[in-house]
Amino acid sequence: MNGQKPPETRDRSELPSQQRRGEFDLIERYFAPLAGPGAFALGDDAALLTPRPGEQLVFTADAIIAGVHFLGDDPGADVALKLLGVNLSDLAAMGARGVGYLITTAWPRTLPEAWIADFATGLGRGQALYDVELLGGDTVATDGPLSLSLTAIGALPTGEALRRNGAKIGDRIYVSGSIGDGGVGLQILRDALPGGDTADRQRAIERYRSPQPRLALGQALRGLASACIDVSDGLVADLGHLAEQSGVRMAVELPLIPLSPLADLIGGVQGAITAGDDYELLFTAPPAVEDQVLAAGQGAGTPVHCIGQVIAEQGVALRNAAGHLVTLDRPGYRHF
Amino acid sequence: MNGQKPPETRDRSELPSQQRRGEFDLIERYFAPLAGPGAFALGDDAALLTPRPGEQLVFTADAIIAGVHFLGDDPGADVALKLLGVNLSDLAAMGARGVGYLITTAWPRTLPEAWIADFATGLGRGQALYDVELLGGDTVATDGPLSLSLTAIGALPTGEALRRNGAKIGDRIYVSGSIGDGGVGLQILRDALPGGDTADRQRAIERYRSPQPRLALGQALRGLASACIDVSDGLVADLGHLAEQSGVRMAVELPLIPLSPLADLIGGVQGAITAGDDYELLFTAPPAVEDQVLAAGQGAGTPVHCIGQVIAEQGVALRNAAGHLVTLDRPGYRHF
Repeated sequence: MNGQKPPETRDRSELPSQQRRGEFDLIERYFAPLAGPGAFALGDDAALLTPRPGEQLVFTADAIIAGVHFLGDDPGADVALKLLGVNLSDLAAMGARGVGYLITTAWPRTLPEAWIADFATGLGRGQALYDVELLGGDTVATDGPLSLSLTAIGALPTGEALRRNGAKIGDRIYVSGSIGDGGVGLQILRDALPGGDTADRQRAIERYRSPQPRLALGQALRGLASACIDVSDGLVADLGHLAEQSGVRMAVELPLIPLSPLADLIGGVQGAITAGDDYELLFTAPPAVEDQVLAAGQGAGTPVHCIGQVIAEQGVALRNAAGHLVTLDRPGYRHF
Repeated sequence: MNGQKPPETRDRSELPSQQRRGEFDLIERYFAPLAGPGAFALGDDAALLTPRPGEQLVFTADAIIAGVHFLGDDPGADVALKLLGVNLSDLAAMGARGVGYLITTAWPRTLPEAWIADFATGLGRGQALYDVELLGGDTVATDGPLSLSLTAIGALPTGEALRRNGAKIGDRIYVSGSIGDGGVGLQILRDALPGGDTADRQRAIERYRSPQPRLALGQALRGLASACIDVSDGLVADLGHLAEQSGVRMAVELPLIPLSPLADLIGGVQGAITAGDDYELLFTAPPAVEDQVLAAGQGAGTPVHCIGQVIAEQGVALRNAAGHLVTLDRPGYRHF
């Protein structure tokens, strides 16, 4: 999207309609209108961003491929919101606000232009929801599957980033929202999983297709949380990442985990905590700030729930409703 | 690369060798060692960067696909240097220094691990050459062609970015280095183009495979150049972009264009100026600073050559050795 429009496609009015689907034309039609002021309508070599004094910038990148990270028949707008959402979720986990993003896309030659238009609509919706702007990118055609890559840029006050390595023994463990909807939504779409209330099913599908990054909550947790991560690999796996990076053990009470109303469809709590795609925040904080933590969740519109405590040694330990403590050999994902 | 290593692959020593080729293992083995201090060895949700006071940041992203933007049998290290080079060339054209980059990669399942290792070696070499660090990324497997996407981040003093839209009537037009090597190199590799001196052929191949971004020159041109672009689409096309963005006509003397010693193999000056992949800087500057412009080229180790003048009206005009002025209908690429 560096403005490298071959002049052949410059004046759209001169071209027969079947030629209008050039890569550069797609940029001009669908993506240039999304560009922020620093991106010069994607008409220069690169975009400019003026950082605010006293802020650090935060960067993350994710790639998603049709058939692997989303389903081939997912609507374009949902895929755009998912791509933005999973990246902004990483920024949320650091406590950052969103600033902007760059996107590169490899479109299969057979992809209908209407899908691309819908995709751009989704990006525009995401920009409004999360207060980010398009800063640049590139688009190419491919003989392979639809592949999308996004780099997200966020910002936060210098020195206040939430990290994975700060959990301390005695801290409480919290998770936001509910766990398992993403996994339920995936199985409904991919495997035609039956059962459950219609509204709950729709909500699970929406949470799978267009997860909402917890940006407001992440920012509210700066100065409160001692460690934070977003739940993308599944709650147990992400507990394992916090445990590993912090050098502690995460002791979690299974009955305290806020579950999707449809969790029973995927095996209850054990299914929910090993499914991924929740994009909630999982974090630790000292007991002294518990009231502030709960208030932060209320203020951000995403309730948080205490699910356990940080203890000595390494790994993840889960206690079930009968009070039996299950210690996992490895600090992460495992089938029960 | 957000540290989402499934614990199954965490301890490499536990795995049989045929399983070691997991995506997460590739990150740990080849990419984590390239990560800068703000990237936390790719073990956190995102990377942190502290901007220098008084600087703006510059962003650009490009995607390249095997068989389209590079040849399937190009060595991994060269592809890495090309991917870094084409992105950093956009930063150079803005007058920025390089800071860092994020990379997403879609590896075909059949790609030999040795190619990936060579690719990472090339990234490391590029990091040392251009003083940039890896800030993050993501890696996925694909059934399609090898696809690579890179977001480059640069920095420059606030307000000093070189843009495409500042060329003024009376300014001189300059280009760095020589024009046509990229096109010659491509045709040697792709079409077995014969002819020319062996050392020149090798140099053309190298310039095609691993173009050197003119970062030092771009920075030296801040405060001197009135408009700047990197030559990626071909000299005439990029003259057209400058003309279009600046609302002027670029009048170029063909005999003044510094040509590849092998330009005759691809049709001489007319072939060279319509081939792409040169990654030289094309810029304009007022006549009053000509001495400083030439000195900037010498200082940066990349000589610059005056090839014409900015005149009134729109588009690109080329004058040949016989003094005949050819006015192009459109401000860009056209076959002669």
